[in-house]
Amino acid sequence: MLIYDLEKRGPRPLYEYLYLCIRDDILDGVLAAGEKLPSKRMMAKDHGIALITVENAYAQLIIEGYVTAEEKRGYFVAPGMGMFRRKGPREQDEDLNDTHDDARQGSWKGTEQGRKTWLADFSSSKLKRDAFPFATWTKLMRRVLDDREEAFLEKPESRGVPELRSAIAVYLRKAKGLDVSPDRIFVGPGTEYLHHLILQLVGASRIVAVEDPGYKKVGQIYESHGLKCLHVPVDENGLIVERLWNSNAKLVHLSPSHHFPTGCVMPIGRRRALLDWARAQGAYLLEDDYDGEFRFDGKPVPTLASLDDETVIYLNTFTKTLAPSIRIAYMVLPEKLKNRYEEKLSFYSGSVSSFEQYTLAAFIGEGYYERHVNRMRNYYRQQRAKILQIFEESSLSKVASMEEHAAGLHFIMKVQTAMEDEAWMKAMEEKGIRLLPVASYSYGGQAKYRHQFLMYYTDLEEKNLRGAFEIMGNSIF
Amino acid sequence: MLIYDLEKRGPRPLYEYLYLCIRDDILDGVLAAGEKLPSKRMMAKDHGIALITVENAYAQLIIEGYVTAEEKRGYFVAPGMGMFRRKGPREQDEDLNDTHDDARQGSWKGTEQGRKTWLADFSSSKLKRDAFPFATWTKLMRRVLDDREEAFLEKPESRGVPELRSAIAVYLRKAKGLDVSPDRIFVGPGTEYLHHLILQLVGASRIVAVEDPGYKKVGQIYESHGLKCLHVPVDENGLIVERLWNSNAKLVHLSPSHHFPTGCVMPIGRRRALLDWARAQGAYLLEDDYDGEFRFDGKPVPTLASLDDETVIYLNTFTKTLAPSIRIAYMVLPEKLKNRYEEKLSFYSGSVSSFEQYTLAAFIGEGYYERHVNRMRNYYRQQRAKILQIFEESSLSKVASMEEHAAGLHFIMKVQTAMEDEAWMKAMEEKGIRLLPVASYSYGGQAKYRHQFLMYYTDLEEKNLRGAFEIMGNSIF
Repeated sequence: MLIYDLEKRGPRPLYEYLYLCIRDDILDGVLAAGEKLPSKRMMAKDHGIALITVENAYAQLIIEGYVTAEEKRGYFVAPGMGMFRRKGPREQDEDLNDTHDDARQGSWKGTEQGRKTWLADFSSSKLKRDAFPFATWTKLMRRVLDDREEAFLEKPESRGVPELRSAIAVYLRKAKGLDVSPDRIFVGPGTEYLHHLILQLVGASRIVAVEDPGYKKVGQIYESHGLKCLHVPVDENGLIVERLWNSNAKLVHLSPSHHFPTGCVMPIGRRRALLDWARAQGAYLLEDDYDGEFRFDGKPVPTLASLDDETVIYLNTFTKTLAPSIRIAYMVLPEKLKNRYEEKLSFYSGSVSSFEQYTLAAFIGEGYYERHVNRMRNYYRQQRAKILQIFEESSLSKVASMEEHAAGLHFIMKVQTAMEDEAWMKAMEEKGIRLLPVASYSYGGQAKYRHQFLMYYTDLEEKNLRGAFEIMGNSIF
Repeated sequence: MLIYDLEKRGPRPLYEYLYLCIRDDILDGVLAAGEKLPSKRMMAKDHGIALITVENAYAQLIIEGYVTAEEKRGYFVAPGMGMFRRKGPREQDEDLNDTHDDARQGSWKGTEQGRKTWLADFSSSKLKRDAFPFATWTKLMRRVLDDREEAFLEKPESRGVPELRSAIAVYLRKAKGLDVSPDRIFVGPGTEYLHHLILQLVGASRIVAVEDPGYKKVGQIYESHGLKCLHVPVDENGLIVERLWNSNAKLVHLSPSHHFPTGCVMPIGRRRALLDWARAQGAYLLEDDYDGEFRFDGKPVPTLASLDDETVIYLNTFTKTLAPSIRIAYMVLPEKLKNRYEEKLSFYSGSVSSFEQYTLAAFIGEGYYERHVNRMRNYYRQQRAKILQIFEESSLSKVASMEEHAAGLHFIMKVQTAMEDEAWMKAMEEKGIRLLPVASYSYGGQAKYRHQFLMYYTDLEEKNLRGAFEIMGNSIF
């Protein structure tokens, strides 16, 4: 039974106060999406108020989308509603922050999302809103819905639907110089899932090597599987192969085309040395081509896998090129690991909705993906040039430099300062600027990577950039 | 360059033979989905034939959907095409099995799918085609597409989008007597993925106990993570708790509401004993409610988790109730494991497309899911009654009995015979009847479960059933 203390309404009309109470209970999750509200008659009776008062309150909730009315069934909390208000669109709405909202304001505190807007958020790798080819994607989705009714009742193949794997194979041949049969391609709902599979294939009791600095999550995944991680330092040519000698590592995770986060590209000599080591050791190299689609100088770096696809596992995702909500990544397994998968892991069910797999297969197969990537590449190229120009014109450029490797979706900014990174970052946060220190991606290189910051540029408001660079420039001592 | 030996065409017209060659290369995967075909002019030139011949062949390929024509770009192998012909719809088409199709017929041999139709396939747990609420689902999908453009650019929360978890919480309260907060609900692309998470939470170096006989895949998953599986025998009340004493198991996987495969329900006494053991041992019980939606006698068995949700992890999936292509499962974690997840595993990205999560949230939240489950329950109830009646009237009932626990999507048939299961099954397969022996789900109970067969009934053609039962009845000695 929903009972509100209507005495507390102050000068507000009854219906408005009732509306506010229910709305806030919905926003706070006290009333969950899909839950049935009491009938209007019951509500009026329970509160001893007129039916028309409840009717007005309910009508307001319906107009604003908090509640849906269903014929002959009653009133329900709308499906979009939940207790997770800090992510809801209403957080932007200043008007809602009236005194009634204490509980909600409380839930803001201490959360990063608490800050409503950033002048410039260089920590966000979020894609621009208009980056996603929404019209084409929904067109294909609708077509798959129309044409593929059967597909709903099919259990998707363990390694992914054939159509998608074929389309990826064609793409890899064209775009990456990787000529592999679709049966070596494995699809999963994100690279993390594929890491799980790789660990099961390579052997879970092994030592794995990761780059330092590097993509921290990979180390977390490995350690969460009880593995020992060896953090191998990188220099300007990428992972230092000598540091792998005597390591007994059986799997090495690396990003040779555009090292994360430093941005360096591994030259062919280092690649060969790495492959020689791996072959001698019987180890696998896991090539994470996480932003391999985004090279801007027109000379695509051949993948490590294209040099030796029996030693290298190739890993890529559509999350960075399409949208983070599309949970589809893929890997190419060496023949030997593919066979081991078939022998030992093919009992696993498919892990990605067939519906989205068919949509993506059509998207790639009909050439939309390549066009989309080209379009985004051009967009990012211009975006980079513009940001670099604004940077050069700013006072920041006198005390900092931008590292540029003509690839990827972030820069590295090196700051000439004696200040502690932590303190400076905090000061910047207070002025609405968010940055990520490179040192936070390193285990052994805290000192080496001091005063370096990773700066994503995909979700920046250009109009704020000049101001942000000036603020930063004026706060470095 | 595509070159076919047109001399081999026999009495066929040139265009038809060319069409067949290309079509078969598409079906065999020689030409992959999305691949560009030579221009008509080039094709004619390479073969020294008239342009009109190629035009006719291409036109036929387009009409039949093997090839798509794209303005100013040329001709492409249609996205639905691939090398995985044995799953394609064309396999049903007898007409295609002409002499040109040797290679394809070859690929049939030895594959289970090689048999075109079964008189009765009791091994298939596939849902009936019209079981999936296609119209409603696509309606909601379209609405999500229209209303939720933003959602494409959001990274789904690690544990699932709030709307879906809220909707599941409401459902669990109503349908399962489980009153849990949405933040204890975790969504993943199938139960297998959730098993991965559970192992990381409970500790990967532990001993896990599974039911014998039981759901074999769970044991495979655990062993593939390097764990030691203890196979605990079940009796008519489910898992024998005494066999867990001195076991040191820290996780026990079980299906108390409808044991797989025997179908027995664990009574309250056994449940209490199991919970007592688990609490004393500091172990977790993993309740796999894999077909908990399908009890037919109107007395839903309360979940084990509703007795003690600090000791029990509850696991369920939408695959069995909705469609196997929808890869969404969920679990409810005890508070302690939820906290451990937040502390250690929240770095994981969301693993299910937000788009499908929102669709499912609406489907549940607006009451469609409950109605669908009710409809399916009624359908299966009738289906079961009908099958049991046909069985009773058949000669098979004189030499076999059907075990019935008023739940789930399969029966257990016990056959009075001296024949070996293997030999009899083979004989039945040759007559178009597929069965699964219960013994194949057991490690230590091969003898105990002899002459018992698991029989799924969800995808049976009723018209064939009478014949199938007679054939079986007449072949048991």
